Amino acid sequence: MARRRSERRPDLSPGTTQVEGRRPVLEALRAGRPLRKLLVAHSHPSSGPLHDLISEARRRGIPVQDVPPAVIDRLAHTRAPQGVIAYVAAHATVDVDDLLALARTRGEAPFVLLLDGVTDPGNLGAILRSAEAAGAHGVVIPRHRAAGLTPVVAAASAGAIEHVRVAQTSNLTNAMERLKAEGVWVIGADPAATAMSIYEAQLRPPLALVVGGEGRGLSRLVRERCDLLVRIPMHGATASLNVSVAAALLLFEVRRQMRDPGDQ
Amino acid sequence: MARRRSERRPDLSPGTTQVEGRRPVLEALRAGRPLRKLLVAHSHPSSGPLHDLISEARRRGIPVQDVPPAVIDRLAHTRAPQGVIAYVAAHATVDVDDLLALARTRGEAPFVLLLDGVTDPGNLGAILRSAEAAGAHGVVIPRHRAAGLTPVVAAASAGAIEHVRVAQTSNLTNAMERLKAEGVWVIGADPAATAMSIYEAQLRPPLALVVGGEGRGLSRLVRERCDLLVRIPMHGATASLNVSVAAALLLFEVRRQMRDPGDQ
Repeated sequence: MARRRSERRPDLSPGTTQVEGRRPVLEALRAGRPLRKLLVAHSHPSSGPLHDLISEARRRGIPVQDVPPAVIDRLAHTRAPQGVIAYVAAHATVDVDDLLALARTRGEAPFVLLLDGVTDPGNLGAILRSAEAAGAHGVVIPRHRAAGLTPVVAAASAGAIEHVRVAQTSNLTNAMERLKAEGVWVIGADPAATAMSIYEAQLRPPLALVVGGEGRGLSRLVRERCDLLVRIPMHGATASLNVSVAAALLLFEVRRQMRDPGDQ
Repeated sequence: MARRRSERRPDLSPGTTQVEGRRPVLEALRAGRPLRKLLVAHSHPSSGPLHDLISEARRRGIPVQDVPPAVIDRLAHTRAPQGVIAYVAAHATVDVDDLLALARTRGEAPFVLLLDGVTDPGNLGAILRSAEAAGAHGVVIPRHRAAGLTPVVAAASAGAIEHVRVAQTSNLTNAMERLKAEGVWVIGADPAATAMSIYEAQLRPPLALVVGGEGRGLSRLVRERCDLLVRIPMHGATASLNVSVAAALLLFEVRRQMRDPGDQ
């Protein structure tokens, strides 16, 4: 099965990755990513979202190839390619200094998110989507023992992966120290009762939020390097939230506190 | 494949459903749900979470049957049963009046969440988990064209499904009218720029939040029946959030505003 897949895959350079689904492909087009080729199911109607997408690709001079729907399904890494796969240059990941540079360019205090071992691609995609929507300057993820930037993550991000900078690091605590050296306050999420409520803590940039992986939370070394630990107040019988939900609550609490510097 | 599955399934009454994974099964045990039987992979070690779970089940007089790990995997509806499946009475869903009665019993103003067509089981599970953690009195879901209370939803809720009341209704707008008749303020989530920001709106119980399904948002009839429409302020290039993230931001903003009635 795996063998048949790879035999069928178009001959593209190792630096190529694929984007699947109408919305992710449209976001990649709009973000100006260098698409090398679009494969579309030839059963597509002569109007509608897929048709618009094809017209947009043709306007930009990107080769569009009609193939049977079964070919799309066979090549897809995700379950819902919706009749379209785009081959694009692989996401160039950046480093922590690039995120700081982006903040400087915009004249804003740095606002970044660090993930300590999020392993589920669906969660990583949803978190990238939330970070982008909250206006963060980027997300830092570990290079090992964590989800990377795969097509499944891109699809789960609903296209946000095209708009948010992601720095991959082989050492998360070094990234934390680098941020601290630039005057960024590093705040970790911890469900322990001793942590301060996110509504009592001052959560305004320059600030880096650190969120742990599914089930495990922050690793000891990472927790020890945080300037402050905060918790989301819980009101039920269950003790924790989905990691993508927890990350979103933190990101948007920062935005809420930013909207009026006098208010807490 | 489907045939083999059903042949292998234990002979249990139609009102039986299964709960899978260590945490969901433990939550079901703790919530006192009537477990009829536990199937466990006989490779389990003599200590650790699975062992504790088995001891707890035996203390409660629930039959525990050791089976080969392959049997667990074959019977599982989810991808990670973690060596344990429990057979329990199907979740008894309630109606809107039961949610109102729970609020009354607790001496609290009603705080409920209505979902207008959430179809992804992972999203529904995450939303039930967030609703429970935010201390809502329950969640109202449509009986048709939406995800129901399946084992996949139970697993995605990480056990929260055992602690949160879920009312299934064949007519969501009727449920909205019923809530309004009881003095509950019905507030819909709408990304349109004309909607009021969740940070400007007064979001305090008695209150019912209404969140639309993936990609589609609120249906016209539901939107028209809302007392107020609110939006989550967005700061990026992408236009929307994952539905479980949007629901969580709304639920926890209600909790934040509840914590200090004088503060907005």
